[in-house]
Amino acid sequence: MDVSNEPYMTKQQLFEQIRKKQSFLCVGLDTDITKIPEQLLDADDPVYTFNKAIIDATAPYCVAYKPNLAFYESMGVKGWLALEKTVAYLRQRYAQHFIIADAKRGDIGNTSEMYARTFFDGMKVDAVTVAPYMGEDSVKPFLLYPERWVILLALTSNKGSDDFQQTHDDKGEPLFGKVLRTSLQWGNDEQMMYVVGATQGKWFEEVRKIVPDHFLLVPGIGAQGGPLEEVCRYGMNSSCGLLVNSSRAIIYACDGDDFATEAAREAKKLQLDMKEMLARYLR
Amino acid sequence: MDVSNEPYMTKQQLFEQIRKKQSFLCVGLDTDITKIPEQLLDADDPVYTFNKAIIDATAPYCVAYKPNLAFYESMGVKGWLALEKTVAYLRQRYAQHFIIADAKRGDIGNTSEMYARTFFDGMKVDAVTVAPYMGEDSVKPFLLYPERWVILLALTSNKGSDDFQQTHDDKGEPLFGKVLRTSLQWGNDEQMMYVVGATQGKWFEEVRKIVPDHFLLVPGIGAQGGPLEEVCRYGMNSSCGLLVNSSRAIIYACDGDDFATEAAREAKKLQLDMKEMLARYLR
Repeated sequence: MDVSNEPYMTKQQLFEQIRKKQSFLCVGLDTDITKIPEQLLDADDPVYTFNKAIIDATAPYCVAYKPNLAFYESMGVKGWLALEKTVAYLRQRYAQHFIIADAKRGDIGNTSEMYARTFFDGMKVDAVTVAPYMGEDSVKPFLLYPERWVILLALTSNKGSDDFQQTHDDKGEPLFGKVLRTSLQWGNDEQMMYVVGATQGKWFEEVRKIVPDHFLLVPGIGAQGGPLEEVCRYGMNSSCGLLVNSSRAIIYACDGDDFATEAAREAKKLQLDMKEMLARYLR
Repeated sequence: MDVSNEPYMTKQQLFEQIRKKQSFLCVGLDTDITKIPEQLLDADDPVYTFNKAIIDATAPYCVAYKPNLAFYESMGVKGWLALEKTVAYLRQRYAQHFIIADAKRGDIGNTSEMYARTFFDGMKVDAVTVAPYMGEDSVKPFLLYPERWVILLALTSNKGSDDFQQTHDDKGEPLFGKVLRTSLQWGNDEQMMYVVGATQGKWFEEVRKIVPDHFLLVPGIGAQGGPLEEVCRYGMNSSCGLLVNSSRAIIYACDGDDFATEAAREAKKLQLDMKEMLARYLR
């Protein structure tokens, strides 16, 4: 394990950035080579070139970036290179932004150890998303890295979240509730966050009963279509406690020459909404 | 989607290989650069060189190979290259072997689509392991590829499998049972298999009540320590229905010059046990 003293972000530092920028926006880098502007396709590394432009344009309006691993893996070795370069660029130029590898990993202990090494030693991100199905020993290896974060899936934004996450056990507790409650024994709110989809509006209240102090990573604003106001009303806590992600609505705002400017405009629009939400709901 | 006519394996073809070889062994390629014999470290690509030697030595005794993605990802771009070369070598030289990408992926629809593209278009494996937590739309994109397989996590071999997989719902059904039962509506036994750990001996009977005809991928023999006899007594069906994986016990049988010979010896030992099991339990 690499125990370098690189400055990864604590909960307090993340909250400071949120207050300073009046934003809890996370920009999702779901970069699809078939969707980026044509004029970039001649570049040496079109995906990295696109990401760099999007990052430079949106950085003032967001506090986090979330590359989605699937999009990079789908391009094989080239994709991994683009991803590594993107993360390195972020760490070098935007050290005050929180970096999430959206990978949804999770396996037996020795394998999760390898995944943790991939993202925390190799790629040096702040956080990685992890699936809870395999239980404690599949999550613990990620928690051995000081100052890094596990973002555990709890209640996701997609239709299939109904299939198992809402299943009530013989004591009346839904599975996502059990995941939240059980994982409180694995790590605290300085090491763990949870994924709760923006489409789960009314459930944020239930989530907050179990994890009042944790940050929640909230996908599903924009292309997936959840309402920001409801998320904030039920989900915001005294240190904001929300990172709301938008991917496609920002990065594909426009496919012309001004794609970066338009991405910035979309990010700023969300930032202004978030400023209002902070004024209204930050307790 | 690539709809090439490459010959991927059907259930019937897999069973034919099992009968022919009297083996249902899957060799897990959990190749860790820190554990391979020193003399390979000077090779251009030590991991691929190791895999190639292991594959050539063990191919007569097994019907499947299962590279574990975490081990390759942990080496970044180099690891992906080694993985791609390993899979290409298998497809070219050992087309009668079933190839499983042990990746435990699963995300919202558009992202699972990308993962499916990675493994089925890019890497051309027969099967990929998928985590069920996010439900139907996280699994379906993998099932759109004809002649390819989803291997869904049901009841895993690790200690943490108790945390959620065994949770009983308000109708008395454990989560893994609900995963099995629900997913029967997503795809049939020509497209789906399930992961059931060898350490779950007594539960194989319950699993077989729900999925009598499916193949099960069974990790946990060897380093993870489950007993083969119990797995076969409760788990074998009329087309065998089992792929039993062993990783470390085979590939790290010895770290000297004769690592490949020793790996073959371990694989053969398991094959002989399996031959006996087929004689005893194949119905």
